Amino acid sequence: MNPVIELLLQRRSVRAYEDRTLVQEAKDQILEATLRAPTAGNLMLYSIVEISDQRSKDDLARLCDNQPFIACAPWVVLFAADYQRWHDLFAWSGVEETCRQAGEAMRNPEVGDLLLACADALIAAQTAVIAAESLGIGSCYIGDIMENCERTRDLLGLTPYVFPICLLCFGYPDARQAGKERSSRFERKFICFENKYRRLIRRAGRDDRGTPTRVIQGPQVDRWCRQPGAARL
Amino acid sequence: MNPVIELLLQRRSVRAYEDRTLVQEAKDQILEATLRAPTAGNLMLYSIVEISDQRSKDDLARLCDNQPFIACAPWVVLFAADYQRWHDLFAWSGVEETCRQAGEAMRNPEVGDLLLACADALIAAQTAVIAAESLGIGSCYIGDIMENCERTRDLLGLTPYVFPICLLCFGYPDARQAGKERSSRFERKFICFENKYRRLIRRAGRDDRGTPTRVIQGPQVDRWCRQPGAARL
Repeated sequence: MNPVIELLLQRRSVRAYEDRTLVQEAKDQILEATLRAPTAGNLMLYSIVEISDQRSKDDLARLCDNQPFIACAPWVVLFAADYQRWHDLFAWSGVEETCRQAGEAMRNPEVGDLLLACADALIAAQTAVIAAESLGIGSCYIGDIMENCERTRDLLGLTPYVFPICLLCFGYPDARQAGKERSSRFERKFICFENKYRRLIRRAGRDDRGTPTRVIQGPQVDRWCRQPGAARL
Repeated sequence: MNPVIELLLQRRSVRAYEDRTLVQEAKDQILEATLRAPTAGNLMLYSIVEISDQRSKDDLARLCDNQPFIACAPWVVLFAADYQRWHDLFAWSGVEETCRQAGEAMRNPEVGDLLLACADALIAAQTAVIAAESLGIGSCYIGDIMENCERTRDLLGLTPYVFPICLLCFGYPDARQAGKERSSRFERKFICFENKYRRLIRRAGRDDRGTPTRVIQGPQVDRWCRQPGAARL
């Protein structure tokens, strides 16, 4: 097993950090690697906003489902899907005017564009996570950043075509982290399929009283339900 | 610079593959690392579908904007946002019945759930890309998989709460790849901001004839427009 795969296998989310700022060189290396992440059509449909202001970090900790560790993280970084940059360029280049002359409306970003931009942003985010990990810097994704996206938009000055898809906290893991076990994962057979997707549970229809009946596809469902991930719900 | 960062910096998309299948051990290592990717609440809101059937690969090549190299890739893998698995579990566990008794409708996955599941799927996908890279296996993202998602759904048996967010092609780079230069990227200052997002171009309003005037924020816009990514449009 090579050291990269080893690193990926050992990675855990880190929420308890040493009280130590990240040196600029580490941040530079992480960002340099991040900006090399694959991106659709080389458009780089994302923006990265580092949140260094403590009051903003405090606000984000509250906005993200009250998770105080966010405010304590040495390095807090937003990854946003960004179609604003290109849309502005189109407008600035006269596309709007050209469309008007042709009697057509300029096309605005739609849901497919948002999803493509989210893909770019997340691929970049995971590249940052792995780069950080290789430097001994732990990280934790905050998906809750989406929950109050309008307030996040106000706080960070995000414009309409910029969507905050994930927040990342970075820092050196502190002693509390050392004793923690890796969380388990579902077995591969519940996640990976060949050629056809397979539903693990399927409703067969309704019985003669109109109550839905369910067909459970084999014994794997019970085992799947007993996985730790399921138990957390 | 450590070997992981080096790997991330050197990575390029690979679309021309040697005519050589990936050994099972390589696939196993990639998938094992992938399933350790960070995931929201440990829910693993994604599924992975390997497409080994040549007719399906041919269909996908056509559905994804006619890119024949997809059909030639030794390993083609779909990453799908998957809320079906959990939704089925909720229904199977009697949540629907409990809601009915309480006179409420069972909540179905909404756009926020889709985005969170896309995040899980993409974080897993990029983990797979990096694991593969460490084994000398090149990869290419196909975002076009979203374009004809209804036909992709039919082809791969995806259910309503399973969304095909990205396809990945894997294979050993062939000789045609060797001479290719890495694509350039926008400079960091156009992508990374501190505390507040910054729009590069902003419309100021309209002049006295009603024509929109535009304020260009500094000389960076011109330089940004001259980047190779911009020139491709």
